[in-house]
Amino acid sequence: MSIPAHRSVLPRTYLPPGAGLRVDGDSMLRRLAEISRFGASPGPGITRTGLSTEENAARDYLAGQCRADGLVARTDQAGNLVIRRAGADPTRPVVLIGSHIDTVGNGGRLDGTYGVMAAHEVLRVLARHDVELAAEPVAIAFTNEEGAHFPYPFLGSLAIVGKVNTGYASTITDRDGRSLRDALDAAGGDLDRIGDAAWPSGSIAGYIELHIEQGPILENRDVPIGVVEAISGRSILDITVRGSQGHAGTTPMSLRKDALVVAARVVLAVERLATARGLCSVSTVGYLKPDPNVTNVIPGAVALTAELRDGRTERLRAAEQALLTDLAQLGTATETFIEVDLRRVTHPVRTDERISRLIAEAADGLGLSHLTMPSGAGHDAQIVAEATPIGMIFVPSKRGISHAPQEDTEDDHLIAGANTLLHTVLRLAGEEQR
Amino acid sequence: MSIPAHRSVLPRTYLPPGAGLRVDGDSMLRRLAEISRFGASPGPGITRTGLSTEENAARDYLAGQCRADGLVARTDQAGNLVIRRAGADPTRPVVLIGSHIDTVGNGGRLDGTYGVMAAHEVLRVLARHDVELAAEPVAIAFTNEEGAHFPYPFLGSLAIVGKVNTGYASTITDRDGRSLRDALDAAGGDLDRIGDAAWPSGSIAGYIELHIEQGPILENRDVPIGVVEAISGRSILDITVRGSQGHAGTTPMSLRKDALVVAARVVLAVERLATARGLCSVSTVGYLKPDPNVTNVIPGAVALTAELRDGRTERLRAAEQALLTDLAQLGTATETFIEVDLRRVTHPVRTDERISRLIAEAADGLGLSHLTMPSGAGHDAQIVAEATPIGMIFVPSKRGISHAPQEDTEDDHLIAGANTLLHTVLRLAGEEQR
Repeated sequence: MSIPAHRSVLPRTYLPPGAGLRVDGDSMLRRLAEISRFGASPGPGITRTGLSTEENAARDYLAGQCRADGLVARTDQAGNLVIRRAGADPTRPVVLIGSHIDTVGNGGRLDGTYGVMAAHEVLRVLARHDVELAAEPVAIAFTNEEGAHFPYPFLGSLAIVGKVNTGYASTITDRDGRSLRDALDAAGGDLDRIGDAAWPSGSIAGYIELHIEQGPILENRDVPIGVVEAISGRSILDITVRGSQGHAGTTPMSLRKDALVVAARVVLAVERLATARGLCSVSTVGYLKPDPNVTNVIPGAVALTAELRDGRTERLRAAEQALLTDLAQLGTATETFIEVDLRRVTHPVRTDERISRLIAEAADGLGLSHLTMPSGAGHDAQIVAEATPIGMIFVPSKRGISHAPQEDTEDDHLIAGANTLLHTVLRLAGEEQR
Repeated sequence: MSIPAHRSVLPRTYLPPGAGLRVDGDSMLRRLAEISRFGASPGPGITRTGLSTEENAARDYLAGQCRADGLVARTDQAGNLVIRRAGADPTRPVVLIGSHIDTVGNGGRLDGTYGVMAAHEVLRVLARHDVELAAEPVAIAFTNEEGAHFPYPFLGSLAIVGKVNTGYASTITDRDGRSLRDALDAAGGDLDRIGDAAWPSGSIAGYIELHIEQGPILENRDVPIGVVEAISGRSILDITVRGSQGHAGTTPMSLRKDALVVAARVVLAVERLATARGLCSVSTVGYLKPDPNVTNVIPGAVALTAELRDGRTERLRAAEQALLTDLAQLGTATETFIEVDLRRVTHPVRTDERISRLIAEAADGLGLSHLTMPSGAGHDAQIVAEATPIGMIFVPSKRGISHAPQEDTEDDHLIAGANTLLHTVLRLAGEEQR
């Protein structure tokens, strides 16, 4: 096919091509409200952890909606729900869109689920209008992205790129002794055949994930659409400062080796990495625990974590090195021992420049302003990136809150994000094979 | 009596007078080892909390030793063991010497107990030599100084100055539901008659407490005797820093109000009070707890304590004010809320200059170098100070360790301290009524 799909299949009155197609926002919001019932009680927020009965019920609900719309939904060996238009040619390359429907404990209604329900709505629109595209749009609801109950995050997306470690997965049980294997069975999957969930090489032309930002940047800048340029990599340094424990009343200042005073300087050094020094995107000490942590005892040791994130590997490495140098100097200057364990490293993932350009063009076509930005949080897209070019679309999160019952986004923004996804799919699936 | 006692009662061959008297060091160390069996198991160190069966057994042991030596020991209504020489005139003013025999959980063998066993040995020497003094030396083992089990510290010393709040004491029970009242009964005391344990006004001419330093100063300076000039007062500021909790990956540095970064600056500001600014003797943050204290979450709040100590009330007040000013400026600069609760205040207690001079003279007479120093820790002496002039003698603590199984002091230092106590008593009880 040499003529762009959107020219061939959309009425000529739509200029630019496809510009008239829109998602049914009310319908999408209604289904988003309906699926939010699964895991809504007891407790605040939504608890619909991966491979739970609640996630299974949500998957069944969505599969039922698909059938009612004439879409074809099947659960793969990993528990992912894969949604296609009826009669789609299974040999054509696919533009995959989606996210996940599991949540953290007491999480929000949008993280993951919004991207799935928008992808489903995009497929409904494309099916209803019988839009013919060079690549076939397929929606997916990944399972257990969060890993909040069974500690194997990204299980669903790892499966489609053939990267599940079944040996390790076989060992996982929850606190009640229930195995991941049994839970996956109950979800319609099969750990022994999870390799069959992998998509053949080259079968996915691209993956686009629509997600709430989970941060405050878009709201703060009053921009409805974020075009993600990279999913940040993350380095966690487990740091222990060892000084000398002592009586807070009887030990003179000159004879102290107060581990908390040194740890306080570590906290400020970590902050400076991303602020004054600009070496990485963000840097945080989220965890700090003095020992013995008693009012009248000089802390003898402090354990803390430094978490650094950036979209570029070379910047992360430079920030790590700068911190290690700081810590070595601080240990020498204060005569304390500072131990560092740098094992928990996730590499950054760049999104595809072409898909990002298409997202920006789609937003432009819809009259939506957009901002190029990093994703500080992890997403299924970073896993799928091993197999195919990826793109990500963000919509604003009210007050930047996520993983909490207060997680929210304006309805208009939810609809704008879904329309941007729709028009990005039109462009990408239309361009494919040109 | 107008002639100093040490001139009238000691043989003229001893020059300076009384210089030849010495404690029986081996005997004292043996009894110190014997009393250390009470509470020595299970667990490391010694657990002989106030009003426990272990403390009662230790008290019975010591009373038995007194009987064997011809001393008179009785337990008062507060559970204090009061030891006198047989036939002592009960109407004469008293020079009281002693400390406590209760411990913290898994504590050391010396804290408190050393001062009691040395006081007992001093009384043995004075009884054996039938030394007549203007004031009568009396030894005391206070109960429940630590308050480690029943949270009414200084119970014994408060009783002899008539300051026990019996209404409040009546409400105290341990975790097993056993009341302080019942425990005091079992110890030979009587909460309803605890007022009778108070000594009449003017009956105590002075109180001298010998104690391990519990800090590293004497060891560090290689000085065997500390002459305590003040028991430090203490102010505890309970501080809460309130910022904004957020996702460590998705919240840009510029939009953060990281409570832990602010708390780190508080830790350093507290340290500076006693170091660079020299406003108080010591200043410590011993307790710090971020919320929620998770690696990938920006701490929304941090609770911490600032503990300031000094021997002078006006310096403590100035240090508190300086910190409050720092915190107000820091809160404004960082747009966080910093709440401060300053309720836990103990005032400093000065020791008596005359008794301190006598301690120094006693040490000089024994050829022992001495150092004037503050006591950073609290002691029964600060309570007894309400009724009479006090003095305190310190001996070195190895590596400054106390309230721990590793608490230790060289035998030579233990004996030197006991001899200094003996000769201070000789001087004070001899001078009395001059």
